[in-house]
Amino acid sequence: MGTRLDEFEAYRQRMNERIMAADHLGIKRFFNLDTKAYEDGALSAGTKELLGLVASAVLRCNDCIDYHRIQCAEAGFSDEELYEALNVALVVGGSIVIPHLRHAFETIDLLRERDGG
Amino acid sequence: MGTRLDEFEAYRQRMNERIMAADHLGIKRFFNLDTKAYEDGALSAGTKELLGLVASAVLRCNDCIDYHRIQCAEAGFSDEELYEALNVALVVGGSIVIPHLRHAFETIDLLRERDGG
Amino acid sequence: MGTRLDEFEAYRQRMNERIMAADHLGIKRFFNLDTKAYEDGALSAGTKELLGLVASAVLRCNDCIDYHRIQCAEAGFSDEELYEALNVALVVGGSIVIPHLRHAFETIDLLRERDGG
Amino acid sequence: MGTRLDEFEAYRQRMNERIMAADHLGIKRFFNLDTKAYEDGALSAGTKELLGLVASAVLRCNDCIDYHRIQCAEAGFSDEELYEALNVALVVGGSIVIPHLRHAFETIDLLRERDGG
Amino acid sequence: MGTRLDEFEAYRQRMNERIMAADHLGIKRFFNLDTKAYEDGALSAGTKELLGLVASAVLRCNDCIDYHRIQCAEAGFSDEELYEALNVALVVGGSIVIPHLRHAFETIDLLRERDGG
Amino acid sequence: MGTRLDEFEAYRQRMNERIMAADHLGIKRFFNLDTKAYEDGALSAGTKELLGLVASAVLRCNDCIDYHRIQCAEAGFSDEELYEALNVALVVGGSIVIPHLRHAFETIDLLRERDGG
Repeated sequence: MGTRLDEFEAYRQRMNERIMAADHLGIKRFFNLDTKAYEDGALSAGTKELLGLVASAVLRCNDCIDYHRIQCAEAGFSDEELYEALNVALVVGGSIVIPHLRHAFETIDLLRERDGG
Repeated sequence: MGTRLDEFEAYRQRMNERIMAADHLGIKRFFNLDTKAYEDGALSAGTKELLGLVASAVLRCNDCIDYHRIQCAEAGFSDEELYEALNVALVVGGSIVIPHLRHAFETIDLLRERDGG
Repeated sequence: MGTRLDEFEAYRQRMNERIMAADHLGIKRFFNLDTKAYEDGALSAGTKELLGLVASAVLRCNDCIDYHRIQCAEAGFSDEELYEALNVALVVGGSIVIPHLRHAFETIDLLRERDGG
Repeated sequence: MGTRLDEFEAYRQRMNERIMAADHLGIKRFFNLDTKAYEDGALSAGTKELLGLVASAVLRCNDCIDYHRIQCAEAGFSDEELYEALNVALVVGGSIVIPHLRHAFETIDLLRERDGG
Repeated sequence: MGTRLDEFEAYRQRMNERIMAADHLGIKRFFNLDTKAYEDGALSAGTKELLGLVASAVLRCNDCIDYHRIQCAEAGFSDEELYEALNVALVVGGSIVIPHLRHAFETIDLLRERDGG
Repeated sequence: MGTRLDEFEAYRQRMNERIMAADHLGIKRFFNLDTKAYEDGALSAGTKELLGLVASAVLRCNDCIDYHRIQCAEAGFSDEELYEALNVALVVGGSIVIPHLRHAFETIDLLRERDGG
């Protein structure tokens, strides 16, 4: 069952297309920069997605957590590796991160169920 | 020349000792948890310090950036790897991160000069 | 179709009335100050609502984005002007703002559909 | 009618159990520290829950507001005392806190209706 | 030795007078609201200053920590009570609060030395 | 006397050059996007700098406040217009913004003294 993830991905894609259709050069370039920041380079794409996941968790953004957790799937991180990363976020960001930790653990499970990833 | 780093480390050590001397069980346990969060586990200590560095940058804490950059030295990250991590922080956190990017680059250089690390 | 906006406005009005009914002098005065901050003065009401919109976006508050976008309607900003303001918010606040950019673009469209504004 | 509170508490309990089941030592210790921080000590448990409520409000976390408001019930704070604490949060945190003030007032009422507390 | 505190208080007073001299009605009213939020009411002034201290710590503002710690002095809180409040801030806000914890402990000591308070 | 501003500008320029010298494509593009976001477009450059100033104030970044206040000078905003913008930031961001309000007022004065702007 991946309904929450499916809805997030559908909304995300629909609204990103709406934003792109506004054809604002600055916004389009930002989206492009954002994509490129997570590509293989001096650090692997997987490590960068993990950095994105932890940054999203300490900044307490559920949509960003979901996005980076989905991207992390490709890198093949184990549950234990994801837990370790989220533990760093919890210690840095404090108990205010806990509601997002609950969300992140749910997303970890939803994605394993849906994609096995 | 590592004066700024030296002062930070001296102040950090002095005040941490002062805090420990208060002998508050909760605070002492928190400091212990904080240390353990960056030890080798499912993820390497180096990867975790990089996570700590990026979390510190997006939360815009110069002292935390310095601390994790110093800890990162042991893992032997190249400048290019540190730049890549800081680029992720910049894209996630936006231009408000730029003053901390300046600080981080300065710390990268100060540490190379002082410790070669 | 303006259902999301209608629900937000109904909930907002109902709870604001509940808060006022508590009759706490400090809270009532704060609400009054908040209203007055966006009235015409050395800067026009429209410019101030735009400032409120960008502040809401970088602080990542969807309800505040909706409120200021609704208030912006009276000032007659074009879509292009709203996109420019949101682009500033995106650059200052980074990719963590993107989920709120999606929300803001949706609200821009919902309000045009409902009120033509 | 306490449906929103019931759902929050059920989700919170289910996901906390899921997180504990992951058996990550750091995360488990953090949850333990979090619980202990609000126990009677030099300050009363009630005062500490009030501190937790205000911290949650200025950091703008609805789940955390609900949790501490529920915990505050045991200490027997009057509505007026809760309003005063929330007014401090409003003044410190600004109008960006207002959507969370609406949430907090609703939770105050829902809990009085459900538990009388 | 209270030099840091003396400088902070002198700068704070000088700039507050400068801000008042600008004679902006909204800003003046905000400063008035801010003062009144910490006066005795349903909660004691002391409890409210403690709420202000913890809010300042989780929002990571050293000047605000100093201001509320100075205000807390009048309420006669013991060191142990202040440590407990700061521990709540540490758990809620995470390790990113630690540099401000160092600052807060230093301010506790500086004020005891200077004023005995 | 503009010493604080002079030092800020010198440090800012020196470290920006250092960052550019690292030759990281993503970071260089981000800096370019950042510059372009404040150029004349559907909104005037002046209005955008005012948006940047308020965003900087609510996100509580003194360096960013200084930068945008300097940029605002070219647009010829009066003191009263700057006060109005800062009042919006104060109401949105709350008393935690006050230390940055003090900084902003000082910078307004320093720049008038140094450049008359």
